[in-house]
Amino acid sequence: MPKKEPLYHKLADLLDEMIRSRSLRPGDRVPSVRQFSLQQRVSIPTALQAYVTLEARGLIEARPKSGFYVRSRRADLIPEPRETASPGKVTDFANTDPLESLLTAAINSDLVPLGAALPSPSLMPGEKLLRTMAAIGRRLGPSSTDYDLAPGAEMLRAEIARRSLDWGCALKANEFIITVGGTEALSLALRATCKTGDTVIVESPTYFGLARMLRELRLKALPIPLDCATGMNLDALEVALRRTRVAACVVIPNFHNPVGCTMPDANKQRLIDILSARNVPIIEDDIYGDLQHEGVRPRCLKAFDRDGSVILCSSYSKTLAPGYRVGYIAGGRWHDRLLCLKRTSTFGGALLPSLAIGEFLKNGGYDRYLRSVRTAYRHQVEQMREAIVEHFPEGISMSRPQGGFILWCELPRKVNSIELFKRAREAGISIAPGPLFSSDNSFQNYIRINCGYPMDSRIEGAIATLGKLVRQLL
Amino acid sequence: MPKKEPLYHKLADLLDEMIRSRSLRPGDRVPSVRQFSLQQRVSIPTALQAYVTLEARGLIEARPKSGFYVRSRRADLIPEPRETASPGKVTDFANTDPLESLLTAAINSDLVPLGAALPSPSLMPGEKLLRTMAAIGRRLGPSSTDYDLAPGAEMLRAEIARRSLDWGCALKANEFIITVGGTEALSLALRATCKTGDTVIVESPTYFGLARMLRELRLKALPIPLDCATGMNLDALEVALRRTRVAACVVIPNFHNPVGCTMPDANKQRLIDILSARNVPIIEDDIYGDLQHEGVRPRCLKAFDRDGSVILCSSYSKTLAPGYRVGYIAGGRWHDRLLCLKRTSTFGGALLPSLAIGEFLKNGGYDRYLRSVRTAYRHQVEQMREAIVEHFPEGISMSRPQGGFILWCELPRKVNSIELFKRAREAGISIAPGPLFSSDNSFQNYIRINCGYPMDSRIEGAIATLGKLVRQLL
Repeated sequence: MPKKEPLYHKLADLLDEMIRSRSLRPGDRVPSVRQFSLQQRVSIPTALQAYVTLEARGLIEARPKSGFYVRSRRADLIPEPRETASPGKVTDFANTDPLESLLTAAINSDLVPLGAALPSPSLMPGEKLLRTMAAIGRRLGPSSTDYDLAPGAEMLRAEIARRSLDWGCALKANEFIITVGGTEALSLALRATCKTGDTVIVESPTYFGLARMLRELRLKALPIPLDCATGMNLDALEVALRRTRVAACVVIPNFHNPVGCTMPDANKQRLIDILSARNVPIIEDDIYGDLQHEGVRPRCLKAFDRDGSVILCSSYSKTLAPGYRVGYIAGGRWHDRLLCLKRTSTFGGALLPSLAIGEFLKNGGYDRYLRSVRTAYRHQVEQMREAIVEHFPEGISMSRPQGGFILWCELPRKVNSIELFKRAREAGISIAPGPLFSSDNSFQNYIRINCGYPMDSRIEGAIATLGKLVRQLL
Repeated sequence: MPKKEPLYHKLADLLDEMIRSRSLRPGDRVPSVRQFSLQQRVSIPTALQAYVTLEARGLIEARPKSGFYVRSRRADLIPEPRETASPGKVTDFANTDPLESLLTAAINSDLVPLGAALPSPSLMPGEKLLRTMAAIGRRLGPSSTDYDLAPGAEMLRAEIARRSLDWGCALKANEFIITVGGTEALSLALRATCKTGDTVIVESPTYFGLARMLRELRLKALPIPLDCATGMNLDALEVALRRTRVAACVVIPNFHNPVGCTMPDANKQRLIDILSARNVPIIEDDIYGDLQHEGVRPRCLKAFDRDGSVILCSSYSKTLAPGYRVGYIAGGRWHDRLLCLKRTSTFGGALLPSLAIGEFLKNGGYDRYLRSVRTAYRHQVEQMREAIVEHFPEGISMSRPQGGFILWCELPRKVNSIELFKRAREAGISIAPGPLFSSDNSFQNYIRINCGYPMDSRIEGAIATLGKLVRQLL
């Protein structure tokens, strides 16, 4: 006669079955131990033993102060892409033209939103910001129409400066200029440091908005490969610098777009050392920096800056409100030049949106908001990884970002992502094909997937469709 | 025995005395004929005869549908400045540096606001716009945080297109791009048409923001003198074009800043003909175009454009809300290039301010607002002219603008306006000294005076102080 199975095993099997049948899905929170004990009419220690068993089976995991969650077990078996590109040569971004226009057309459309890197508006604190803005406007009275001449509202700059402690910096309000989103910040930084025809170091792959910007400013790109765990390959950087004279270097050190990696502090330090020694200004894009999935916020490159050669660019477009157009730049020794450029480019930003975001930072709303949204993005990324494993053919690799809400996905070599992009679009799905992120048409078999929206049947259906389309292209 | 004086003469003398003693001041509305007849207990025909008498004495004037106003008689005796500058040579604007920083510091300060060209916030419909914006935001719900990707909100562009009929154009919504105020519009237009080191035709004097912009873009200026009645001297333009290769021409055809002149239609046509024949793109700054003091709105240069070579730039910063940062550009054949530049410079504008202004245009609020503010600015300009005549020494000349809210004032030759600017600043008064508006340090004895604020004792006191300072410098 078989030994009697312990009660907690039976309970564990119960949940195991729910997870395997996808009634509970990766990233879902399972009931609390107390709830489970009540539901199953067992003692709390027994319920807890069941959970520990499931944890041992690798099916759920505990998260501090948050409870137990279904693990993304299958997705964990998928490797991350490795080093991303061959050593770069100087090129321009002219080849991305047709795609870029297709992609921008996809924003604000009826396509399933897996293309642009955008959170769901439902995850943003739109109502709170609006109420805050209206209250500030009423308080200002007639002055609510005033110019907000650059550098921009003192109170917002003071709040951002206070937060810089979080990034490992200790910046002052007068070191910041408020910008029209991260786009203006990057554009001003490039215009301040480069002149027509200059060469700029970029990561390969990199943010495709940067690619378009370099083209419009008639700057050349020198792409440096990324290691998908640690960011820019610094050995490759040193080799490239020996061969080529560059005017600036643009880096996304934290939760890289599209790769998702974060440079370790030691690499950040070494990057600064390498570039400072050659007097090359560093333009840091930190737009996802506040969105770590757990633990402490990664430090900015700016935290390692000793001589003002790092120009930190960021915005609240990925965290609070894309359409409020509130970004910032801390320009180090380029500050005065940036201020002149800002005043002659847009003069100042919109006053009320700036003050609304300033107030939201000040009254603690932003910190509360970040706590909830970090968990949401972690969850959404996990669920997306799991859905991709479920529906895509074998032989893919996939990033494992520790922050932000985008995935970088390497498909089998035969799959042409531009063809996939076109077919997906016909099927009502927007994705971002790999070559968009490249200056030399690399990443033909890569796609970037936006996980900014809560997983639902529409998105899961879109991933299933994408999986079929990928198979067609094999 | 002397013939008995008619009653209406006595009544006219009564008002005459009030006007001469400045109890009624130039630009003030006198009581209506009906009110006056009631006040003086005389018949309406007698009251009317008194007014006709005062009109014959040149003391008051009738304005259609508005009543009788005290005339600015003394100011009328002051001549306008004549042609503004010697034929230009190619220069840059580097000399304006220290002043520019002083002037921008004066915005939002406690100085009497005669420097920056800004209306009083109390004259702007701030509360209505705020309510409109809040209502739109609530209606949008979570979408209130969405990007407004360039070219910008369709409904705002459609409203602006509808209004283009007023300017003598018939533009369509898809010919416009929404910009971050007029500054971004001008900056994009210059970047689209010029490259580093190119030469640009500007008026002399011209908007000092343009001067700063050219310097930052490393463009050279070729100044062309203005006729203070008809705008750019087109003969001088033709001569200059024969000698110099230029990349673009920037013109403020309507209610010029700082001179106040408006080009007659025939000159607009001729300007277009001259520049089109040489394939020189024309950048039109129409920011004051909606602010005629009476009669019909002047036409835009764009109305005379046959081949898409006019880039029309404007904004609602001088009319509705500087701090909402809503401007626009109709780029003709440069549209696609401008759109690429816009997307890589700021990506898009702030959504809610754009929609609020769009709604205000759509529901008739803007037209109602313009009707009241045009009268206010006419009144303020008249009162300012009169106050200047009252307090400044003889030998000045002064513009007589038919729209907008700025005055251009030529002081006696010995008066250095930069010295005057400094002394005024010490006395708590902001003015704009002439050399700011020049690329070659011309207009040493000119100042620009902002009339955007209703006349009150503080402003009249400031003009009295300025008059004393001018005398000190004689």
